Amino acid sequence: MKADRRKMLKKIDHIGIAVHSIDEAKKFYEEGLGLTCTRIEEVESQKVRTAFFTLGETHIELLEPTAPDSPIARFLEKRGEGIHHIAYQSDNLEKQLQQARENGCRLINEQPVPGAVGKQVAFLHPKSTGGVLTELCEIQNPEL
Amino acid sequence: MKADRRKMLKKIDHIGIAVHSIDEAKKFYEEGLGLTCTRIEEVESQKVRTAFFTLGETHIELLEPTAPDSPIARFLEKRGEGIHHIAYQSDNLEKQLQQARENGCRLINEQPVPGAVGKQVAFLHPKSTGGVLTELCEIQNPEL
Repeated sequence: MKADRRKMLKKIDHIGIAVHSIDEAKKFYEEGLGLTCTRIEEVESQKVRTAFFTLGETHIELLEPTAPDSPIARFLEKRGEGIHHIAYQSDNLEKQLQQARENGCRLINEQPVPGAVGKQVAFLHPKSTGGVLTELCEIQNPEL
Repeated sequence: MKADRRKMLKKIDHIGIAVHSIDEAKKFYEEGLGLTCTRIEEVESQKVRTAFFTLGETHIELLEPTAPDSPIARFLEKRGEGIHHIAYQSDNLEKQLQQARENGCRLINEQPVPGAVGKQVAFLHPKSTGGVLTELCEIQNPEL
């Protein structure tokens, strides 16, 4: 079982960062760090606008709320701007979720839901991950 | 200048996560996610014990305070367990710091200091990076 689990997680897909304004926040990533914004996309299901910066095999994902009841708007209200979640890419999301569940993790999404860039995603609750909102995702369309 | 900056950052080196106890926290990474702890090291200058989990080209770094006046102890007291910082690997840390400074970033370390795994590291203040404690680092000994 353990060997299977190790094989499923491939890499850190992205780090999600909550910001009030992508236009403001991306100055640091572009000018301060020298990264390039490669994609801006709205994810209606999460009520956010996202901006991606690619670095090596992973991405920084800035998250700006598009509505006051967006999960990101609530995070900003409570904690202010900062790191929101870590996303891990798996090659078998359903099995990954099942094994997380079997090991005592509390799932926010019992089933995968559509995320940015055509991915299937599911979140684990920070209460069962040492305070870290953890996303597991699986690529559906490698061309995106 | 911009082209230079893009070349210097190579990848996300690690994500630092503040925990009360590495022994407790690593259960989630080992059992829940199926990762393997590859290294445990104490960094005296930061008053922390660190545990590394390698995934692809990057790492998860759990940070447990070794003294009450450790920066991680203060973070835990204020925010509880959770993501503490993102570290980017550069191939020219001094120039990277200079360019961050020129673009309005406030530096916590004006000069690089020794970090874990024989790296040279410097932190940027979250006030100038959209709330994200940002570490820049350079590998000194690729064999570690």
